[in-house]
Amino acid sequence: MLTDVLLTSAANPRIKSVLALRNRRDREAAGCTRLEGAEELALALGAGVAPTTIFHCPELMGDRTAGADLVAVARERGARVFECSRAAFEKAAYREGPDGLLAIVPQPGVELAALDVPAGALVLLAQRIEKPGNLGAMLRTADAAGVAAVIAADPVTDWGNPNVIRSSKGTVFSVPVASASTAEAMGWVRERGLTVVATTPDAVDRHTDADLTGGIAVAVGSEKYGLDAELFVASTVHVRIPMAGQADSLNASVAAAIVLFEAVRQRG
Amino acid sequence: MLTDVLLTSAANPRIKSVLALRNRRDREAAGCTRLEGAEELALALGAGVAPTTIFHCPELMGDRTAGADLVAVARERGARVFECSRAAFEKAAYREGPDGLLAIVPQPGVELAALDVPAGALVLLAQRIEKPGNLGAMLRTADAAGVAAVIAADPVTDWGNPNVIRSSKGTVFSVPVASASTAEAMGWVRERGLTVVATTPDAVDRHTDADLTGGIAVAVGSEKYGLDAELFVASTVHVRIPMAGQADSLNASVAAAIVLFEAVRQRG
Repeated sequence: MLTDVLLTSAANPRIKSVLALRNRRDREAAGCTRLEGAEELALALGAGVAPTTIFHCPELMGDRTAGADLVAVARERGARVFECSRAAFEKAAYREGPDGLLAIVPQPGVELAALDVPAGALVLLAQRIEKPGNLGAMLRTADAAGVAAVIAADPVTDWGNPNVIRSSKGTVFSVPVASASTAEAMGWVRERGLTVVATTPDAVDRHTDADLTGGIAVAVGSEKYGLDAELFVASTVHVRIPMAGQADSLNASVAAAIVLFEAVRQRG
Repeated sequence: MLTDVLLTSAANPRIKSVLALRNRRDREAAGCTRLEGAEELALALGAGVAPTTIFHCPELMGDRTAGADLVAVARERGARVFECSRAAFEKAAYREGPDGLLAIVPQPGVELAALDVPAGALVLLAQRIEKPGNLGAMLRTADAAGVAAVIAADPVTDWGNPNVIRSSKGTVFSVPVASASTAEAMGWVRERGLTVVATTPDAVDRHTDADLTGGIAVAVGSEKYGLDAELFVASTVHVRIPMAGQADSLNASVAAAIVLFEAVRQRG
């Protein structure tokens, strides 16, 4: 396996720098994040990501040939490759039972101004989402629904959060994503002539009653508070998902999925 | 606030017994589980649950009057009430920042044989689900979709798992649930004349092409492996959720939600 540098000590400053990327502030300062495991690395590489650095530990790999192939692809794209001793790798890894592959990759996401979508696009606007697992699940859903872009408005969690990457199954690298304030996001949506469809329990119309065939931004709000007043007022269509039971809300990523796939159905 | 017993020591055996309920084996042996926090307790009480025991710590409560009201309702239903010192309560609590309420409640779920549903019912069959958060989200969705029952087939996670209770937002106590082997679940479904609708990426028909208006059991499989061969073969209708992107699957609870709410739409 091709390797540029061999790391044998868990105290190596390289290991410390990859550990620091667990913190959002360090990710933002560095402009990059970390991902772990063969599955995530394969998905990111498949989406065209060029890792800047690869740490690998053949001893920990279940399938060394497959692992070496991933390392080789990353290297071709310009990654520096560090082979690690088991102790050094386990220090750098976040997961239990690491599989010997860890990469530093550019932070996913673009500036909102650089994000463009075709006319009539289906867009997801996720406001103040807190849980990385919810953002990740929304991305998987957005990918499947053929969503043109996902905008995190006033996000509590950044796109580079390792748990977002993991739960997105790599789609955070393939679906165009951006973060912005709610005001910026609403400006972006207006400029593109998209109709904001707010999903809220207070709406009169059901999501299946609304016309979701045109250019729309489906807006879902935070786990605790739903959509805020600013976004609610700026939305031109309000829909509710019918609730037959005793709970008064759905999981945020589930609500997004139900409305997005109703749009997919209507677009046939 | 009415209290039967005052617990001042974190070493009290009562505290140890509530800690033990974090383990599935101890839950199953005791036939009960634990839930934490005012929100969950209120939801469980709202669903008619009769806690056997309440631990409370007024010092930790944000709203002591609301807390006292919940304790009073539980007491009326027969709960023994233990007031705890802060040290004792924090020892028993699982969450960070506990809010001074913790209850022991009967394990949710009934024997499959005791589970009955009306003709034409919509049922969810979740096979080998591993993540408590997914089971919980499925329950919230099932509650909202008016599902008559949720059956966990060969579950990896039990209904009493504290994270299932939490992520279900209390609906684990209001939606009829049972666990069984896949063979038992299929027998139950057949006896009730329900059509099993298997959700699988390999199907030809889209979920929106199938008639979901009759008595059906929507079957979704494990996060990693989907539905197993036994369930796949026993299913009479196979549907796929269309996938436009690069990922080859959706989050299990998202897939369940998309098919269940398509059934809701068709049922008008």
